[in-house]
Amino acid sequence: MEIYMKIRIGIFGYGNLGRGVESAIGQNPDMELVAVFTRRDPESLKIATAGAVVARADEVEKYKDDIDVMIICGGSATDLPVQTPALARHFTVVDSFDTHARIPEHFANVDKAAKEGGHVAMISVGWDPGMFSLNRLISGAILPDGEDYTFWGKGVSQGHSDAIRRVDGVLDGKQYTIPVQSALDAVRAGQAPTLTTRQKHIRECFVVAAEGADREKIEREIVTMPNYFADYDTTVHFITKEEFERDHAGIPHGGFVIRSGRTGLDGEHSHVIEYSLKLDSNPEFTASVIVAYARAAARLRREGAVGCKTVFDVPPAYLSPLSHEEIIAKLL
Amino acid sequence: MEIYMKIRIGIFGYGNLGRGVESAIGQNPDMELVAVFTRRDPESLKIATAGAVVARADEVEKYKDDIDVMIICGGSATDLPVQTPALARHFTVVDSFDTHARIPEHFANVDKAAKEGGHVAMISVGWDPGMFSLNRLISGAILPDGEDYTFWGKGVSQGHSDAIRRVDGVLDGKQYTIPVQSALDAVRAGQAPTLTTRQKHIRECFVVAAEGADREKIEREIVTMPNYFADYDTTVHFITKEEFERDHAGIPHGGFVIRSGRTGLDGEHSHVIEYSLKLDSNPEFTASVIVAYARAAARLRREGAVGCKTVFDVPPAYLSPLSHEEIIAKLL
Repeated sequence: MEIYMKIRIGIFGYGNLGRGVESAIGQNPDMELVAVFTRRDPESLKIATAGAVVARADEVEKYKDDIDVMIICGGSATDLPVQTPALARHFTVVDSFDTHARIPEHFANVDKAAKEGGHVAMISVGWDPGMFSLNRLISGAILPDGEDYTFWGKGVSQGHSDAIRRVDGVLDGKQYTIPVQSALDAVRAGQAPTLTTRQKHIRECFVVAAEGADREKIEREIVTMPNYFADYDTTVHFITKEEFERDHAGIPHGGFVIRSGRTGLDGEHSHVIEYSLKLDSNPEFTASVIVAYARAAARLRREGAVGCKTVFDVPPAYLSPLSHEEIIAKLL
Repeated sequence: MEIYMKIRIGIFGYGNLGRGVESAIGQNPDMELVAVFTRRDPESLKIATAGAVVARADEVEKYKDDIDVMIICGGSATDLPVQTPALARHFTVVDSFDTHARIPEHFANVDKAAKEGGHVAMISVGWDPGMFSLNRLISGAILPDGEDYTFWGKGVSQGHSDAIRRVDGVLDGKQYTIPVQSALDAVRAGQAPTLTTRQKHIRECFVVAAEGADREKIEREIVTMPNYFADYDTTVHFITKEEFERDHAGIPHGGFVIRSGRTGLDGEHSHVIEYSLKLDSNPEFTASVIVAYARAAARLRREGAVGCKTVFDVPPAYLSPLSHEEIIAKLL
């Protein structure tokens, strides 16, 4: 039997996701947080874990022998394309890179760096990309004659909330993406509908306007905004700062991956596979997925694996703290 | 780039599951059915695949160089405990052994035989065990502070239908297992209820009684039957042979695996992960899962793996006929 040492984790970047990773590590007794790395002044950062170090991001290489897995908690737009390849030269790493269109390019860059450094680098871990991807892959392999549907929400879209806040006269704003119930119902009934963007999701905005601002103009500007809102049915609610803080402080999210397909010599039988998430906190759930894959990354590395990996490449057993005997007996 | 030959499949046993495997192979262009093995007279068997051989079960070893993966479609009670170890000495095999309590013993026997023969043997593939197990494992690893719930149905339980048919005066019968909606709702709401057997599922029976049979006695005998019905709220409907044949010919099934859990430094955020299946044909869906794992078994074997494997041990990418580049670009 293997003797397990605790898996020593580093967190690179301490925003919502980094704090989520910290609290997830606290739920996993086989892991310990060794250090948090920040671009801010380390003195200014208060973390929740007694005994863990707060260190400067540019001193991270000094810790290469003290950390088994570095969890990189930067943003996908500009941080991760630089940070993940750079850190993969020195550490086994996990990131949550989520710009779907650029994943092949990110994979190639990270794979090269990880192989040169002799490390495992797990990218695009979370729920989409992540758990939703896994379900698209597995369900598609099971039901090759079928259709895939992904719905998001009800949940907060950070990008769309940012877009609202850039509108003139808006003090604060939050946007919820909501799947259209009738579309969900049709998909679940195995009707395999063809759905336009507008038929799949609606967008609901809560806006705090500046005093004296032209609300009609704000609303018009939001609902006609190209790329963000123009292709959707969008509703805008004006609320007070107090209501905003009371009712819209959280970062809930979730969604549905549904595959409907047919089997039988004449395709005479229909089947529906559905995976859904209902999340109070998007960053904490994403962090929880990442931490489970950090365990897998540590195991893959221990076995001698190198290079870039995704959720598609990990034997699920590696995610669990239980032994193979236990999972066979208890979970199979 | 790898050059793929078609994966050559054998089917051992040609009941509902074997026929489902045959039709699933027809949906996967990277596979071909080479032979069906039967304990019946091969002359008496008509299969759907042109070009495939029907051969005697006891001549199976003659085909060891012609088959990449043997899919064993026997029953769990007496067939698979013997067949899977025996065939794993000569073939890469997949079975759907589903007696949960005996899986560790089956794993050990099959592992020994597969290692001696130098083959891969994938056991307990299907949806429960199988997809449901996978979801219990992954969701539990993501949300360690949480509770697991598995509900089955609405669907036909073969074992309970058999039990009904053994009651005196019953000509035919079918039993549907149905999850209790209020229990499902409470679990989905993250209420983490403690549920008794009776609170999770109800059992609904459709019975064709012999002419002049004592229906009250039949009903009483069913609803009080220990192990099968006594712990459940059971309803019995008497119907005619014509109604039975018209309305109850199918073998639908399905169910739900739900994990609710908490994250945050004080467990302040709740999350619900739900995986559900709605299946027109239990054997055809099970067969479709098996065929996807047969692809994975062939790949593992090609890489030199040996021994017993389960759904926990397979990197999901191995299930897909698409290349790694394609799944990264299209599905992640």
